[in-house]
Amino acid sequence: MTEITANAPSQRGPSEHTIRSQIVAAATEHFSLFGYEKTTVSDLAKAIGFSKAYVYKFFDSKQAIGEVICANCLEAITQAVDAALAGVPLASERLRRLFRSLVEEGVRLFFQDRKLYAIAAAAASEKWPPVHAYEVHIKGLILQIVREGRESGEFERKTPLDETTNAIYLTMRPFIDPLLLQHSLDLAQEAPALLSSLILRSLAP
Amino acid sequence: MTEITANAPSQRGPSEHTIRSQIVAAATEHFSLFGYEKTTVSDLAKAIGFSKAYVYKFFDSKQAIGEVICANCLEAITQAVDAALAGVPLASERLRRLFRSLVEEGVRLFFQDRKLYAIAAAAASEKWPPVHAYEVHIKGLILQIVREGRESGEFERKTPLDETTNAIYLTMRPFIDPLLLQHSLDLAQEAPALLSSLILRSLAP
Repeated sequence: MTEITANAPSQRGPSEHTIRSQIVAAATEHFSLFGYEKTTVSDLAKAIGFSKAYVYKFFDSKQAIGEVICANCLEAITQAVDAALAGVPLASERLRRLFRSLVEEGVRLFFQDRKLYAIAAAAASEKWPPVHAYEVHIKGLILQIVREGRESGEFERKTPLDETTNAIYLTMRPFIDPLLLQHSLDLAQEAPALLSSLILRSLAP
Repeated sequence: MTEITANAPSQRGPSEHTIRSQIVAAATEHFSLFGYEKTTVSDLAKAIGFSKAYVYKFFDSKQAIGEVICANCLEAITQAVDAALAGVPLASERLRRLFRSLVEEGVRLFFQDRKLYAIAAAAASEKWPPVHAYEVHIKGLILQIVREGRESGEFERKTPLDETTNAIYLTMRPFIDPLLLQHSLDLAQEAPALLSSLILRSLAP
């Protein structure tokens, strides 16, 4: 997720990071009030008290600002997931916790800040780079857990690792992808446990 | 699905079925042009050349008309699924075909008539009776296949039948529920096979 900020040319000086953060903070608030779709870069610049040209010095487009907001949200989920998995020895339990924490964090984001969630949904719909990076990251976590479970003898080893990983990701997807999660909220309590058990039965050696 | 038409009082005479069909056909066309949400019963009555009161003699509300349209769509899917399962001896193959045909029919409906699909999505979002009946029907098919697979020794028998059925339904759900399917179209080719294999691994004795 750091690629997004790292892309900015470094010659813009030490205050660049501060100004970028300022624009992102103001944009987050503005999008929260008026929605991402209905806000133009001009509206945004006016609201912050910057010229449109000045905003464009730091971000190529409105989507570039949206991407940073989106990446921040997804980074918060990733950190919570990492914390939930830390120090858990059994691969089966890590898989359960991965699923549970992804759903909990997604639901929390949805109810805590509906407008930011709308940005995440737009991002998912248009497949913005941070959403793609997030999907790759989650698939990487699944692959790692499955591989470790195979090495320890917890899981079967016959099915190609890629196939297993993709199928597990697809099973979790209605609760990971913001576009689908918003239609899965009434299942968010019971489904992760039921589906984790099904996944673990499918992994039995 | 027949309950909906059967609910109408029988004393309205033999022509009632014809008039109801006429209203449904006209409503289907009208909703296709102007959308379900934006059309009122008055608009509809005017378009058909009936009085609003006359339409209300046959349907309690706009949703009651929408429900018949929705039930017709779901009935078409159910028939195609039944045809796909007929005469297939192995439970595992029936489960694969169930999933594949549900996705194929859902995708076909989506691309064939986007506006009718919008009614199905509204129905799913508001949990109209035909959508609930459809869900119950699909779960019933899954339960029957799993039970038969257990009896023939194809599937494991340890997990409670209800739990297995619900978990399989949840796995298929992104491709069954119209609200989710519209966000899963790019996966509709490969996902059913991958997920069927995962489900079947989970059912191994």
